[in-house]
Amino acid sequence: MATMIEIIEKKQRGAALDEAEIAEFVGSYTNGSVPDYQAAALLMAIYFKGMSREETVMLTRAMARSGDMIDLGAIEGVKVDKHSTGGVGDKTTLILSPLVAACGGKVAKMSGRGLGHTGGTIDKLEAIPGFRTTMESGEFFAIVNCVGAAILGATGNIAPADKKIYALRDVTATVASLPLVASSVMSKKLASGADAIVLDVKCGSGAFMKTVEEARELSRLMIDIGRAEGRKMAAFITDMDVPLGCAIGNALEVREAVETLQGRGPADLTEICVLLSGAMLHLAGMGPASVCEERARRAIADGSGFQKFRQMVEAQGGDVSAIDDTAKLVGAPLEKTVRAAQTGCIVHIDAERCGVASMLLGAGRRVKDDRLDYCAGIMLEAKTGDKVVAGQPIARLYATNGALFAAAEAELAGAYCYGAAPPPAIPLVLDRIF
Amino acid sequence: MATMIEIIEKKQRGAALDEAEIAEFVGSYTNGSVPDYQAAALLMAIYFKGMSREETVMLTRAMARSGDMIDLGAIEGVKVDKHSTGGVGDKTTLILSPLVAACGGKVAKMSGRGLGHTGGTIDKLEAIPGFRTTMESGEFFAIVNCVGAAILGATGNIAPADKKIYALRDVTATVASLPLVASSVMSKKLASGADAIVLDVKCGSGAFMKTVEEARELSRLMIDIGRAEGRKMAAFITDMDVPLGCAIGNALEVREAVETLQGRGPADLTEICVLLSGAMLHLAGMGPASVCEERARRAIADGSGFQKFRQMVEAQGGDVSAIDDTAKLVGAPLEKTVRAAQTGCIVHIDAERCGVASMLLGAGRRVKDDRLDYCAGIMLEAKTGDKVVAGQPIARLYATNGALFAAAEAELAGAYCYGAAPPPAIPLVLDRIF
Repeated sequence: MATMIEIIEKKQRGAALDEAEIAEFVGSYTNGSVPDYQAAALLMAIYFKGMSREETVMLTRAMARSGDMIDLGAIEGVKVDKHSTGGVGDKTTLILSPLVAACGGKVAKMSGRGLGHTGGTIDKLEAIPGFRTTMESGEFFAIVNCVGAAILGATGNIAPADKKIYALRDVTATVASLPLVASSVMSKKLASGADAIVLDVKCGSGAFMKTVEEARELSRLMIDIGRAEGRKMAAFITDMDVPLGCAIGNALEVREAVETLQGRGPADLTEICVLLSGAMLHLAGMGPASVCEERARRAIADGSGFQKFRQMVEAQGGDVSAIDDTAKLVGAPLEKTVRAAQTGCIVHIDAERCGVASMLLGAGRRVKDDRLDYCAGIMLEAKTGDKVVAGQPIARLYATNGALFAAAEAELAGAYCYGAAPPPAIPLVLDRIF
Repeated sequence: MATMIEIIEKKQRGAALDEAEIAEFVGSYTNGSVPDYQAAALLMAIYFKGMSREETVMLTRAMARSGDMIDLGAIEGVKVDKHSTGGVGDKTTLILSPLVAACGGKVAKMSGRGLGHTGGTIDKLEAIPGFRTTMESGEFFAIVNCVGAAILGATGNIAPADKKIYALRDVTATVASLPLVASSVMSKKLASGADAIVLDVKCGSGAFMKTVEEARELSRLMIDIGRAEGRKMAAFITDMDVPLGCAIGNALEVREAVETLQGRGPADLTEICVLLSGAMLHLAGMGPASVCEERARRAIADGSGFQKFRQMVEAQGGDVSAIDDTAKLVGAPLEKTVRAAQTGCIVHIDAERCGVASMLLGAGRRVKDDRLDYCAGIMLEAKTGDKVVAGQPIARLYATNGALFAAAEAELAGAYCYGAAPPPAIPLVLDRIF
């Protein structure tokens, strides 16, 4: 059995670790017998020397198997999942889960909470009064069998190795490593038990992947890992330079999700949800992607997607009247208008700064234990490419505590960049890999 | 003030850290506010990206100043020090300190203990009954002023940053980094307060520096660091492929040191001590190196070096009768002869394995708290280049516990390599840098 120092030295030389060495690192780090400092040294060596595809597959497998491997066998049909590499205002899970269910797919989803400038699906759902994001697996499976979709908070024992490794990467400047990003995402997905997984890899100045090439490399790596473990895989590379839709903040995003399911949502958000749903249905064996996208569009048009969302909310204990009348959800006591600093064209909106502004209003967490103000957040009223006149409203801020407006307004105003002419249009979907 | 993550990221990109960043790392790691895992990540980034000379000077200075900076001002004259990068059977400090003192130099030396296969000067001195290796600085200075030389164990507060960083490097595979090796050695030397420092950089298969080129690079780096801090510097690159002299083990090495001071020592050991003493005296302003070497030789020939050693032992509380009659020191109860495995020429002796064999006999420590058997050890009776006949004695092992012989004999026998013809002669001194 190789010692941890031998494993670090081997990677330091640029050699490939074998399965036993990777299993030794993951197992011993997870159980605490390898200290943080040795894991940090290995992660930094991986940052510099990389990992082969085979090593990355073995690492992901070991991380997935470090905790529970969820067996979704009790759910009939093909279980499809989706993962997004993070975004501001990304409420796609709330929309595509019921859309896929309406078209006959099965979505048994585990989601997370937000931290810093990024939001979390579970936080958004908890903005709906009564919505339960934890339950016994029997009930969870029953809801998915009956409704077609259910969304829970990830349990403590899904890929505990990833939790520990991710937390360490975060404080040792080893986040930006392709094999470590891929193994982190895919270990959780493999452990969550879906048969098919659609990846939404964000790309742009605000994302970890700055270029389409990098995003493609990460996508292909994650697809290979999933396929090596017998999962059906597809990936979209999408633009992350602007927030998706107009709403940022938990209840505001639920309202926007409802409007999108009712066919009244922003075009960019609607389009991405149709595409992702189409890919999920395609992987579930429901026909060519284009046909499946058409089905998803119809599920919006005929209201069946919204009905599935209502059923899911009801099955998970949520107050359906707050979905039927979203004014009940979003009533923040205070509102403040942010106005254009100059006349011109909006050439860029920094998504991360929008996320920070929303956090400053109380919609997000600075640290893990912060409590959320569900009705706080931002509605963007002007987006990239729009022409504006100085003083014209470009966004509205919502908060319960008026003292929070000043810092959030400064942050949000700083997120907007103006120019003389509209920027070249960037397509929302930069690439798709099936 | 840069955060530790920003400092790691900067080094990760290959940029040079500035003085404030280096001071922040050293200070905060030493006081415990930077955790081991962040220090480990930075050390691994330094391993891969290196450090400029300027950065290494700043790192060394910060590490030196992390604890007490010893002021040797109470000692008259130029205080000279020596550092060896580690070796088996290296008892040069015991010999050159009195030699330099006999020629008018001042040696106020801090030395360490041994661990694993390497011995420590302090352990060797403690083989002399009564010898005190700790005392108040006033007494220490007085002995150096009066005798010309004294040797103490390094106090707890000499470069505490180095202690912490070295311990971490040892368990994170980051020992083999030139700037980290150089800063570790030189931080202790700078803090120890000498005006002039002669470096003995070991080179060869058993040393950290495998080639003369690497050893030269390390030597020049350490010389630059010392000079940047106003110290006079010189370095020798010496062969480490064979143990120095014939004795390995604490009391055995004291006896060999005494014999060398009396002009009866092994040629290699005598020569290296004369060269290092000459360089120390030269840096102390006593004339050209060749003249100073002649003085050192004379101090052996006329017995003045041995008299200085006697005076030093007496001043530090040691039993001088054990120096006058070293049979009192070395009387191990058990002895075992190791015989040549074959007829031929000894082409190589693995110094590290000799050190391990000595440790196995009780002369060294496996772990930090092991107690030493001062009379245990090895006398080599055949060295590289010697012709031997199968069954001829090549070494004698000494121990108090006969059960230790088997493992030590196997280790020592494995250290010897035989061939048909003598190997090309390697000079003891591979280079000298003044």
